[in-house]
Amino acid sequence: MRCAVVGAGAWGTALADLLARNGHGVALWAHEPDVADGINARHENARFLPGVSVDPSVMATNELGRVARAAELVVFVAPSHVLRGIARGAAPAVQRGATVAVATKGIERETLALMTDVVAAEVRGHSVVALSGPSFAAEVARRQPTAVVAASRNDAAALLTQRVLSSDWFRVYTHFDVTGVELGGALKNVMAVAAGICEGLGLGYNPRAALITRGLAEMTRLGVALGASAQTFAGLAGLGDLVLTCTGALSRNRALGMEIGRGSGLEQALAGRDTVAEGVVTAESAQALAGREGVEMPIVDAVCQILFGGRTPRDAMADLMARELRPELDP
Amino acid sequence: MRCAVVGAGAWGTALADLLARNGHGVALWAHEPDVADGINARHENARFLPGVSVDPSVMATNELGRVARAAELVVFVAPSHVLRGIARGAAPAVQRGATVAVATKGIERETLALMTDVVAAEVRGHSVVALSGPSFAAEVARRQPTAVVAASRNDAAALLTQRVLSSDWFRVYTHFDVTGVELGGALKNVMAVAAGICEGLGLGYNPRAALITRGLAEMTRLGVALGASAQTFAGLAGLGDLVLTCTGALSRNRALGMEIGRGSGLEQALAGRDTVAEGVVTAESAQALAGREGVEMPIVDAVCQILFGGRTPRDAMADLMARELRPELDP
Repeated sequence: MRCAVVGAGAWGTALADLLARNGHGVALWAHEPDVADGINARHENARFLPGVSVDPSVMATNELGRVARAAELVVFVAPSHVLRGIARGAAPAVQRGATVAVATKGIERETLALMTDVVAAEVRGHSVVALSGPSFAAEVARRQPTAVVAASRNDAAALLTQRVLSSDWFRVYTHFDVTGVELGGALKNVMAVAAGICEGLGLGYNPRAALITRGLAEMTRLGVALGASAQTFAGLAGLGDLVLTCTGALSRNRALGMEIGRGSGLEQALAGRDTVAEGVVTAESAQALAGREGVEMPIVDAVCQILFGGRTPRDAMADLMARELRPELDP
Repeated sequence: MRCAVVGAGAWGTALADLLARNGHGVALWAHEPDVADGINARHENARFLPGVSVDPSVMATNELGRVARAAELVVFVAPSHVLRGIARGAAPAVQRGATVAVATKGIERETLALMTDVVAAEVRGHSVVALSGPSFAAEVARRQPTAVVAASRNDAAALLTQRVLSSDWFRVYTHFDVTGVELGGALKNVMAVAAGICEGLGLGYNPRAALITRGLAEMTRLGVALGASAQTFAGLAGLGDLVLTCTGALSRNRALGMEIGRGSGLEQALAGRDTVAEGVVTAESAQALAGREGVEMPIVDAVCQILFGGRTPRDAMADLMARELRPELDP
């Protein structure tokens, strides 16, 4: 099947490689000319996924307006803050009947829209699938066993995505709860910043485990308020991705949090990074969504206070611990 | 308040220290004379919690029959396979009206009883509390922020335990679901063995995150079959403790699994260990419980096949990955 991948960061490159190895023809759009050239000439994305060889059949291009031509599956995987513009640019060539998948994780700052909604607004008349779950790109590229979910309101679109992406070691489970799956992927990045801050402060495993647990609880609360199923957050796109991002060594958001926990300001921590730490933008969006929905999200609030409000990490984390003692659940 | 802690492993010692620092009088029973002597003479448990100074007011003793005298709170924290005998030995001195807490995590192999049921059968007529949650003893002893739950069918008993144990950095949440809280604490040890096996095989973070997610799902299934609340497993005693034990460097069960993943047999991996890896015993008990209740637990089965059935870790893990693709949840 002909496929297009729109975005050649680490995850886009790994997905393009995966599709090609599954026998599909893959066009991959890269913003940067050197990235497209490197993939075509040396079959490597030296900027975003160095050291991994990309299947030689992957054709990289900088022509956004043509990448989706004749593709039956188009996967969008650009950073969240530029996704709308990129989807708009790619839209004219998306053929009728194509399935559109979105692997970007985030919440649009201005509209508070989820990524599938952003893409659906720009590429109209297609079934949209959210692809999410615990999947460090570098591990997928090295064929470590990985399990993700493909969520859509259209069963056939989810099943097509599952069939095209699945292999012996890359398992795709279908899902019905698009909102829950997308929120899980977006919000976990904020929790990863929080986990990194704890670690940067020199705190141990006990506080990190408590933070992950309470973090999942507040993610679930927001999700349920927005119509998601609570159970989705106990699955791969919720708990699974949260655990990966908060405990795995390859997480950018956690790494950023660690720098901040050790005393860097946000600008200092962001300087010199070639990749996006989605958790920073998502923290603000999540706080705004929680405010709109009247949902308490104390960890998101603490991260925002630290990133944007000049609060010290130690003070904000101490406040989190000092919240009133009460039953963990209401019976 | 006068308290007794029955069992001077790492966790019993840390709990005794915590109670003493909260201003309570603490008697601590140790099985080993050298442990009791070391705590009394040098305020250190060099065998099970080396390098940590124990509050000098903690009085250690080897006299099981007298340790609980005059205590208003008695905390049992012996290894699961000897807990019944120890509870029986301590029972005669437990005073009327005392609250009995159980911090041991496991499932009795012969009866498939949970630890609070074992203690309640031996120390009759008391309100029993299950204490569980993500809490490496060495971190509690070093006052890292920690959050746990105290679950009881008797609210007053849970509240008393909360009040006596809580401090600025050690947070105790009350809970109503004793079965769920206990099963979470017990079953997570089996998942930690599985996570260690994956790691020993050289697998990455993606498979570990998937394993934790699917592991929590099967823990929850068994719990619900036994009358627990599914939500309990999303909390500190479920997800929290699971994440800690599967990802933290201090977990014995994970360390044991790593050795087995690297090719050691069970006997070889157990040899020379001074401490108990509860996950080994609990794997068999969990499999038996799952069989009795008709619940599918593929990860528990895989661990049992590897530990007791001569299956190679690689084969058993490959089978787990190769299970049929289906929706993650039923809508």
